[in-house]
Amino acid sequence: MNQVGVYGMGVMGRSLAHNIARKGYSVSVYNIEESGVKLFLDSAKEEEKVNGYIDLKEFVLSLSKPKIIFLMVTAGRAVDIVIDGLKEYIDEGDIILDCGNSYYKDTIRRFNELDKMKIHFLGIGVSGGEKGALEGPSIMPSGDKLIYDKYIKDILEKISAKNDRGEPCTTYVGPNGSGHFVKMIHNGIEYGDLQIICEAYDFMRKVGNLSIEEIQKIFVEWNKGILSSYLIEITADILQKKDEKTGKYLIDVILDEAGQKGTGKWTSMEALDIGVAIPTIAESVFARYLSSAKKERVEASKLYKKEIVAQPLEKDWLDNLEKTVYSAKVISYAQGFDLLKKASKEYDWNLNLAEIARIWENGCIIRANFLNDIDNEFKNNAELTNLLVSPYFKERIESFQVPWRKTCALGVLNGVYLPVINASLNYYDGYTSKLLPANLLQAQRDYFGAHGYKRIDDPEENLIHTVWEN
Amino acid sequence: MNQVGVYGMGVMGRSLAHNIARKGYSVSVYNIEESGVKLFLDSAKEEEKVNGYIDLKEFVLSLSKPKIIFLMVTAGRAVDIVIDGLKEYIDEGDIILDCGNSYYKDTIRRFNELDKMKIHFLGIGVSGGEKGALEGPSIMPSGDKLIYDKYIKDILEKISAKNDRGEPCTTYVGPNGSGHFVKMIHNGIEYGDLQIICEAYDFMRKVGNLSIEEIQKIFVEWNKGILSSYLIEITADILQKKDEKTGKYLIDVILDEAGQKGTGKWTSMEALDIGVAIPTIAESVFARYLSSAKKERVEASKLYKKEIVAQPLEKDWLDNLEKTVYSAKVISYAQGFDLLKKASKEYDWNLNLAEIARIWENGCIIRANFLNDIDNEFKNNAELTNLLVSPYFKERIESFQVPWRKTCALGVLNGVYLPVINASLNYYDGYTSKLLPANLLQAQRDYFGAHGYKRIDDPEENLIHTVWEN
Repeated sequence: MNQVGVYGMGVMGRSLAHNIARKGYSVSVYNIEESGVKLFLDSAKEEEKVNGYIDLKEFVLSLSKPKIIFLMVTAGRAVDIVIDGLKEYIDEGDIILDCGNSYYKDTIRRFNELDKMKIHFLGIGVSGGEKGALEGPSIMPSGDKLIYDKYIKDILEKISAKNDRGEPCTTYVGPNGSGHFVKMIHNGIEYGDLQIICEAYDFMRKVGNLSIEEIQKIFVEWNKGILSSYLIEITADILQKKDEKTGKYLIDVILDEAGQKGTGKWTSMEALDIGVAIPTIAESVFARYLSSAKKERVEASKLYKKEIVAQPLEKDWLDNLEKTVYSAKVISYAQGFDLLKKASKEYDWNLNLAEIARIWENGCIIRANFLNDIDNEFKNNAELTNLLVSPYFKERIESFQVPWRKTCALGVLNGVYLPVINASLNYYDGYTSKLLPANLLQAQRDYFGAHGYKRIDDPEENLIHTVWEN
Repeated sequence: MNQVGVYGMGVMGRSLAHNIARKGYSVSVYNIEESGVKLFLDSAKEEEKVNGYIDLKEFVLSLSKPKIIFLMVTAGRAVDIVIDGLKEYIDEGDIILDCGNSYYKDTIRRFNELDKMKIHFLGIGVSGGEKGALEGPSIMPSGDKLIYDKYIKDILEKISAKNDRGEPCTTYVGPNGSGHFVKMIHNGIEYGDLQIICEAYDFMRKVGNLSIEEIQKIFVEWNKGILSSYLIEITADILQKKDEKTGKYLIDVILDEAGQKGTGKWTSMEALDIGVAIPTIAESVFARYLSSAKKERVEASKLYKKEIVAQPLEKDWLDNLEKTVYSAKVISYAQGFDLLKKASKEYDWNLNLAEIARIWENGCIIRANFLNDIDNEFKNNAELTNLLVSPYFKERIESFQVPWRKTCALGVLNGVYLPVINASLNYYDGYTSKLLPANLLQAQRDYFGAHGYKRIDDPEENLIHTVWEN
């Protein structure tokens, strides 16, 4: 009898199963097609105690009680179908762990359905890609805490990445769908990070007129400073790759149409639904949509003559750009954590924001020392309203605002598409404004729709309606 | 027996019922509380042939066959409850018209439920506020076309507003939920219009240091030019209103926390869901959310010292601002119509965009001659990809881009929150860019997640994966 089952031998499933087996657990794996099982068994190291199955019953029967089954299947309907299939062979007390990018509301539904059958269902956010899954991902588990503590905690702590202080990049996140929710926000933040880097690259090319070689060196430098992170590191790697077919830089033969799998859009829709402003993240989703309308863009670019207001570059423009990227990134994280905080309240999840920052320090796609700074600020003040008002980030952002303003101004005057960098500065200016023109908006809404407004000298009073027309 | 029933005697219901009665129809009205019925009957003119009821059965029995019942109740669960109550007294062939701001997916559900009982259900978008409902709103009906033509068309054409050419501001929009969908987009566009005006006002106050009197005069002037519209007109009205209590301008005693009823957020969520970039409209929703976090803003404003890059104002800065407002507005409408176009395809509604622009020319909140320009462009080319590439708007936007860039640059350098004006310029710059940095984004996604990319020299091929690490 083996201790752990892994269902689904795609690249992520195989990596995770190897990871678990290499930590000393005996592992049964299952795949519908034999090829996946064979790929896995062929790449298993000698030390791994593993067995492969293509018969579902045999797979389940090979596991000791309570059966612990990691699902690594594509999010969506497939997860329901797989669970339905498993129901035939598992019993009360068995444990299913969904490690895909499931939508958190689906996870809540599945949790409730399986709970009625006394089957334990844990929604597990996993980030780190193929390599992370094999060598140590960041893991965001949610569900029944007692079951987690008794059966799952040890496994996840062993297979997860470790941060600089040797701590595992996993922790119990909260009830039912909260693990997948936190993973969704992780991905939303990742959308922002990626788009900010792309905008900086575009700025260097179109405003700075730098070559790919020059830009590549800048990313290498940036990775040693305040921006140091996995995504900056891989950007430097990408920019030195040549295309075998043409001899050009590979980046220059890649089509500029961004794909997406939905987690960024879910994050943005969630924020809209519960009333949290995350324009930076939403703009990074819209930027992907706009990029994928390539044919429309090409037609429009032929039609319009772009007129710009040419400005001389200051000699420290690259230094300004680095500070801009850092600032926009802080705003993106401030929005993501604000959404986590407000969702935690909305859904009564009691999320620990410091811990969430901590488990993102390593293993996941947005990993960076930067997360340690966030972790610290939430540790110092668990009730922190927004990252922007934490002492550490306040000091940096305040001193970076002028360089940031200059970069944004250069962008709009030069006609370069920097939606996320701009939206972030706007958010900063809005968030730090005592007075916004929403008083006029309320007057307008009251004028045409009798929606009412509040007075500044009596903000607790009921809404007041004025007959505006003369 | 009366010809038409109106259910719900709130301010909108009373206005609509008077409007219908004044066009010569005999009208029965119903309200749960007698006070609403009394208010209605007391304000009826002598010529109105009307009867009031507080007994639902009597109300329904007072109507001739097929019974035509306009619902004017708050969107949401109330609509389902009201329909359930009516089911007891109505029969096959009767007609219910939901004139509230219902979510279009609810309307589709209700349409299908009632269709099984052979009761005709029409979802009707109505815009114009209290005064519009009374004197002539813009009306967006959807449902069974045969029923619409036979029983409803004449009523709606009589009670609707008329445009400059004397045409009724109503037309059959499409099947099931399309009328409420179009109304939702109307409101999304309205969010953009309102926020753009607020940002221009804020710019004049904070960058231009103008007084309310000066700003008021500018809106009066703007209403004579390219920006001429109902919302500019009421803004000029608002800015001359004094507060009786303090003697100050009323605008200055109104709390800057914007309210909302959900249609802007629905529009943004819809666009995210079906993959259309509408950052201008989404930013106008986020701007309301940010405004309503007043306490957080006040705290943050105390903490941060806003550092700006002071710039001298050019003497034509106000002229530039007018062109900026116009351009941002065009972008907002371009996004709204793009969403209409793509949703029409997604849901197979066959929407006529020229007709939709035409029925918004008068009666509704966003009414303006500007809509006539949009109507013309779609009439000239029903297959128009985007308003931005229509000859009329292309010429204007191209010539306005430099003033627009200058306004945005002044905004970011001066630390003024102009999220929608900025997002619009960014959209313009993105939409007219042949090359965007999504090639780097695709490389990054392929690096960490093996998501694959396409080559520019082979865009129809399958996704390619590269092993990036050296």
